[in-house]
Amino acid sequence: MTDPRDPVALTQALVRCASVTPNAGEALDLLQGLLEPLGFVCHRLRFEGDGSYPVDNLFAKRGQGAPHLAFAGHVDVVPPGERDRWQLDPFAGEIRDGRLYGRGAADMKSGVAAFVAAAAKLVLASDAPGGSISLLITGDEEGDAVNGTAKLIAWATERGERFDGCIVGEPTCPERLGDVAKIGRRGSLTGQLVVRGRQGHTAYPQRADNAAHRLIAVLDRLVRTPLDEGTSWFQPSNLQVTSIDIGNPAGNVIPGEATARFNIRFNDRHTRSSLERWLHEQIAPLVPDYTLAVSGNAEAFVTEPGRLTEILAASVEAETGTRPRLDTAGGTSDARFIQRYCPVIEFGLVGTTMHQANEHVAVADIEGLTRIYERFLRQFLASA
Amino acid sequence: MTDPRDPVALTQALVRCASVTPNAGEALDLLQGLLEPLGFVCHRLRFEGDGSYPVDNLFAKRGQGAPHLAFAGHVDVVPPGERDRWQLDPFAGEIRDGRLYGRGAADMKSGVAAFVAAAAKLVLASDAPGGSISLLITGDEEGDAVNGTAKLIAWATERGERFDGCIVGEPTCPERLGDVAKIGRRGSLTGQLVVRGRQGHTAYPQRADNAAHRLIAVLDRLVRTPLDEGTSWFQPSNLQVTSIDIGNPAGNVIPGEATARFNIRFNDRHTRSSLERWLHEQIAPLVPDYTLAVSGNAEAFVTEPGRLTEILAASVEAETGTRPRLDTAGGTSDARFIQRYCPVIEFGLVGTTMHQANEHVAVADIEGLTRIYERFLRQFLASA
Ligand SMILES: [Zn+2]
Ligand SMILES: [Zn+2]
Repeated sequence: MTDPRDPVALTQALVRCASVTPNAGEALDLLQGLLEPLGFVCHRLRFEGDGSYPVDNLFAKRGQGAPHLAFAGHVDVVPPGERDRWQLDPFAGEIRDGRLYGRGAADMKSGVAAFVAAAAKLVLASDAPGGSISLLITGDEEGDAVNGTAKLIAWATERGERFDGCIVGEPTCPERLGDVAKIGRRGSLTGQLVVRGRQGHTAYPQRADNAAHRLIAVLDRLVRTPLDEGTSWFQPSNLQVTSIDIGNPAGNVIPGEATARFNIRFNDRHTRSSLERWLHEQIAPLVPDYTLAVSGNAEAFVTEPGRLTEILAASVEAETGTRPRLDTAGGTSDARFIQRYCPVIEFGLVGTTMHQANEHVAVADIEGLTRIYERFLRQFLASA
Repeated sequence: MTDPRDPVALTQALVRCASVTPNAGEALDLLQGLLEPLGFVCHRLRFEGDGSYPVDNLFAKRGQGAPHLAFAGHVDVVPPGERDRWQLDPFAGEIRDGRLYGRGAADMKSGVAAFVAAAAKLVLASDAPGGSISLLITGDEEGDAVNGTAKLIAWATERGERFDGCIVGEPTCPERLGDVAKIGRRGSLTGQLVVRGRQGHTAYPQRADNAAHRLIAVLDRLVRTPLDEGTSWFQPSNLQVTSIDIGNPAGNVIPGEATARFNIRFNDRHTRSSLERWLHEQIAPLVPDYTLAVSGNAEAFVTEPGRLTEILAASVEAETGTRPRLDTAGGTSDARFIQRYCPVIEFGLVGTTMHQANEHVAVADIEGLTRIYERFLRQFLASA
C-alpha cells in the first residue's frame, strides 16, 4: 500500500494504471483507497450520454464549511504511441537519473499525486486548519471531455457544494517549477465555410463564378484583418485556416463550390457569438451565397488576480524564490468548465514532454510541487 | 446509298454511326465509300502509341497541284449521356420541325457532311475549277487527340503534301449561321503548385508557418494580377484556380502543405515558357518553399487576316448578307495542330447544343453551310 504522503511513489503507482482515456477506473480506485482512510467522503460518478462515451469520475470531500478549496485534475492519459520510441516501458513508472518516466508522468498523474500528498500531510498534521478540501478527478480530459469535469462540478454544485477557489493541477511550467501559473485561457472556435459560385469551363470564365476565387478573397481578408491587439491578460486573438478543400479533378472546370475550415483562438474581447457576427460581416460583402457553421464551446475566461492567485504566488515564491508569471497562453483545459463556478488557477509541473514519447518529470519537482500545494492549502484554508 | 451531294441525308447517315471516340471506323467507311467514286484517293491511317489508344483516320485527296485546300474535321462524338434526357434516340438522326437531332448533329458530323456535299457538287459540275482538295478526318478529336489530326497532317506533310489553307468545320457560330469564324485560339496551360510551410498547433501559431496562409496570399496575387489587356485578336489572358486541396481533418492543426491547381488561357503575348517564368516571379517572393509543375502543349496562335479569311468572309456574306466576326475565343481544337503547317480558319454551324442532350442543328443551316463551302471552294481554287 502506497503511503499517501509520498507523491513520488503515488505518481509511480498511478502511472502503472495504464489509464488511456476513458479507462481510468483502476486509477480512481487507487485514489479512493487512499483518500477514504484520510477522512474524505468519496462518490464515484459515472456520467454518460450527450453523444459521448460513459466516463468514470471521482468526487472526494473532507471537512465542512468555508473556506472550501477544490482541486481538479484527470488521471486519463493519451495513448503512448509507438512503443519503440520509448526508452522505458511507458506504464512502468521507472526512475532514472532523478527523473520519473511514463505516460502521464507530466500530464498529470504527478499533479494529482502531489495534491493528494499535500492534503494527506495537512490532514495528518497536529495543526491541521479548518475548512473543506474537495478533489474532482475525471477519467476524460484528453478525450471528448463531455462526461467528465463539466458534469462533475455541475453535480457537486447541484448537491449544494460552493467552492471559494480551485486549483487545476495541469503542467503549466515551460522551463522550471514555478515559472508560470495560468489564470485564464483563450477561447476556441472552429468554423466551416462553404462558398458557392457557378461551375463552368475555364475557357469561358465570364459565364462562371469561380467559387475558389471567392474563397481566396474571403480567406485573404480573414487572415489579414486583425481581430484585436490583445488585452491586459491576453495575446491578440488569432485565426488559422486549417484546411481548404475543393476536390475538383478536372483541370478545365471552374469549381462551383469550395470549402474552408479554420480555428480562432480568442481573448476576452470576444465571445463565440460576437465572432460569428464578425465573420458574417467579413464574408457577406464578398460572397453572395455561402454557409458558415461554427462549433466549439470554449469561451475565453480570466480569473482576475485576487486572493486565490495571491496565495498561490506567495507559496510558489516561498518555495522557489520567484513569483510565477501569470499567463493565459496555450490550449484549452478543464478550467474552462470550472471558471463558471469559482475563481480558478492552473498550476503544476514542467510540461515540456507531455503527450510525447519518453514523457517524464524531475522527481525533485514532484516533491517541490507537493510542498507548494501544502503551503498553499494551509494559507488558503486558514484565511477567511 | 446516300447521294454525296445531299448534306442532310449524309449528316443523318453519319449520326446513325454511333461513333463515340475513338470508334469511328464505320463513319470513316461511309465517307470513303462516297469519296472514292468522286475521284478522291483515300488512305486509312491507324496511328497508335505515345501513351494513348489506337485511332482510325482518313486522308482523302482529289486533284494535283496548287491551290491546295484542306478540310479538317472529326467524326467521333462524345457519349450521349443519360438516355432519358433525350427526347429522341441520340443515334437515329431524326428530323423534327426543321431540326436534325442526334449526338454529333452539331459537333461536327453536319460540318463534315456539308463539306463533302460541297466538294461533290463542285467535282460533278461542268465548270469545276483546278487545284487540289484534301480531307483530313479523324476519329479522335473529343478524346486524347494524340493519334488523330496531329499525326495525320504530319503524315501528309511527310508525304510531300503542301496546303495553301485549311478550313476546320467545327461549329463556330454562337447565334446564327455565319456570325463568327475563328482565326485562332488562345493557348492553355495547367499548373499545380505545392506550397510548404511548417505544421503546428493552432494554439501556437508563432511556432508554425501556415501553408494555407501562404497559398492564400499567392493565389490572391495570381488572381488579381492581370496578365495583359488583350491584343488585336485576343481577349485578355486569364487564370482560373480549379482546385485547392489540403485534406487536413484536424481542426486544431496548422497545415504544413497545401496544393492548388489552375488553368491559364493565354493569348499571343505569351508562351508556355514565358508564363512559367512569370509564375515563378509571382510565387517566389511569397513562398520560400514550393514546387510548381506546368503541363499543356497548346500554344496561342492566330491566322492573321489574308487570302483565306477574306475568301471565306466574302462567301459567308454572299450567302447570309453579313460578314462573320473574326474571333479567337473558346476552347482548344485541332486547329492548333494545323496552324504549324498552313493558314487555318474554323467555320461551321451554330454550336449551342453541342455535347448536350438533344443536340441538334437547323436543316436549313446544313444546306446554307454547304452553299458557303461550295462558294468558298470555287473561289479559293480559282484564285492563284
Ligand atoms: Zn492534462
Ligand atoms: Zn468538335
